[in-house]
Amino acid sequence: MKRILVDMDGVLADVYTRYFELHREVTGQQMTVNDIAGLLEAEAFPLQLEWAATPGFFRSIPLMPGSLNGLKRLNETYDVIIVSLATEFPNSLIDKQLWLHDHFSFIKWQQIVFCGNKNIIKADVMIDDHPKNLDHFNGDTILFNQPHNMLLTTPRHRRVSSWEEIEKLLIP
Amino acid sequence: MKRILVDMDGVLADVYTRYFELHREVTGQQMTVNDIAGLLEAEAFPLQLEWAATPGFFRSIPLMPGSLNGLKRLNETYDVIIVSLATEFPNSLIDKQLWLHDHFSFIKWQQIVFCGNKNIIKADVMIDDHPKNLDHFNGDTILFNQPHNMLLTTPRHRRVSSWEEIEKLLIP
Repeated sequence: MKRILVDMDGVLADVYTRYFELHREVTGQQMTVNDIAGLLEAEAFPLQLEWAATPGFFRSIPLMPGSLNGLKRLNETYDVIIVSLATEFPNSLIDKQLWLHDHFSFIKWQQIVFCGNKNIIKADVMIDDHPKNLDHFNGDTILFNQPHNMLLTTPRHRRVSSWEEIEKLLIP
Repeated sequence: MKRILVDMDGVLADVYTRYFELHREVTGQQMTVNDIAGLLEAEAFPLQLEWAATPGFFRSIPLMPGSLNGLKRLNETYDVIIVSLATEFPNSLIDKQLWLHDHFSFIKWQQIVFCGNKNIIKADVMIDDHPKNLDHFNGDTILFNQPHNMLLTTPRHRRVSSWEEIEKLLIP
C-alpha cells in the first residue's frame, strides 16, 4: 500500500478563510485572494504569527471544502499520514490533534506526525501547499493551490485547486 | 552527516524514577526494578495510563543521568532528531515540547518529531528503549536498558545502560 503524506494547513484546513475573517474583525477590511497573491501568510496578514501562537486558533479553522470525503476515500486506498509542521508553535500541537479528531475521527493517532521537517519521512506521495516541502521530496508531489503559491511556476509538482481534483488524480 | 533518532521516555527522560515516586505517593510502597522486571509500564504501574494522560505529567519527568552532556555531544556530530510516540496522549504534546525546551534548549523545533509510528522516518541510527520501535528499523539500533526490556534477548540491538556508553559507541 502506497504511503501518502497529507498536509493540514492549506490542504485539509482552510486557513485563508479564517485569516480573512480575523483580518476583517481587526481592520474592518475585506481582503480578497488577489490582494495577497504571491505573499506568504505572514506577509499578507501582519498578525498571522500572533494568531498562530494563540491557544485555540488552530482548532477554529474551518474544513477545506471536499476534504472530509476526499480524505476518507484516500484512507481506504493509501497508507495515509497527516503531517504538520507544528513544533514551531507548541500551543498548536494539541489544537491540531483535537481538530483532526473533531473532523476526521477515522484518522488514528498512529497516522499523525507533528514535526519540524517533512523531508525525513519516507513516503510515495506528498500533498502540500508549500513548494519548499515538496521540492526535496523524492516521490510524487501535488501542490494545493493557495494565494501564497499561485504566482509560482512549479512544473515538477502537479497543481490542484480542490479535493475533487485530488480524488480524480489519486483514486483509480 | 548521519541522522540519529533519539527517543524521549526511557532514554532522555527518566520515566521510571517518576513512576516509582508516584507509586510511592499513592500506595506508600517503594518498588524496585526487580519487582517489575519484564513488565510493560502499564503492567508494572496500574495508574500509568492515567498519569500519562494528565496535563503536566511529562513536564515533571527528571532527566536521564548523563543525557544533557551526551545529547549535546551527539548534536555536534550527527543530525539529531528527537522522536516521541506522543500522539497517543494529546495532552503530552505541549508538555514534551516544553520539557525539551526546559532541559535541551540547544535542540531546535526543526529537530523534533511527535508521531504515532517511528518506522516512517528515514535515519541511520535509532536509540530507543522499546524493541518494537527498533525491530523494524533498517539502520543501527541501540537499545537503552529499562526494566520492561531487561529480560528480553535482542541480539540485533546493541544494549546500553547509560549515556556514557552511548557516547563511547557513537562519538569517535
